[in-house]
Amino acid sequence: MKYSPININEKFSKFDAQWQPKVISEMNDYQFKIVRIKGEFVWHDHPDTDEVFIVIEGTLDLEFRKGKVTLNTGEMYVVPKGAEHRPVALEECKMMLVEPKGVVNTGNAKSNLTAENDVWV
Amino acid sequence: MKYSPININEKFSKFDAQWQPKVISEMNDYQFKIVRIKGEFVWHDHPDTDEVFIVIEGTLDLEFRKGKVTLNTGEMYVVPKGAEHRPVALEECKMMLVEPKGVVNTGNAKSNLTAENDVWV
Repeated sequence: MKYSPININEKFSKFDAQWQPKVISEMNDYQFKIVRIKGEFVWHDHPDTDEVFIVIEGTLDLEFRKGKVTLNTGEMYVVPKGAEHRPVALEECKMMLVEPKGVVNTGNAKSNLTAENDVWV
Repeated sequence: MKYSPININEKFSKFDAQWQPKVISEMNDYQFKIVRIKGEFVWHDHPDTDEVFIVIEGTLDLEFRKGKVTLNTGEMYVVPKGAEHRPVALEECKMMLVEPKGVVNTGNAKSNLTAENDVWV
């Protein structure tokens, strides 16, 4: 056992790339990932799981086919399993995702934004 | 579907009691709970699951039988399944827990600090 904390901002300081989720910890078969985003992502869904978004710094719009949620620093949202969504950030937003190990960022939509999975920082 | 964010600090403003975890969201069969703590908790473990601690504000010591981790604001730690631990906070600490639905705060150790489970705020 390693007796040291995981500092979320210190982990963010280790990379600059956007739309590239990095795993910072695992709990059972779930992972906590951090990611920098700016711009519009692709519409996609995750047919097998809910997905948690927590904004660490910035503003995130989660667009849905029939609505929108805006998250600011310190706010979170659970995207339900199977709900089509599109993350959008006008300025760079730092956020944390919580989801089962193996979930790919673009879900059912392959795109040039599909990131390598299970990359740790 | 409800298109509104969950604001973690706003949820904290709704209660003052310490050692009483409140559920703020659910993802699949997992829950996100917030709790105010001050003082020493009881030694316990959760034989069936890891448990995530995220410090929202303050300082948390997680004591183990063979070590200790100190978490400050913005830091997290995953307590492994079955690891005996004792949370301690000299001053009030606001933290978030992530764990499967149904996990009781005192795990295998019944005590007067055992809180009612699955209480939402």
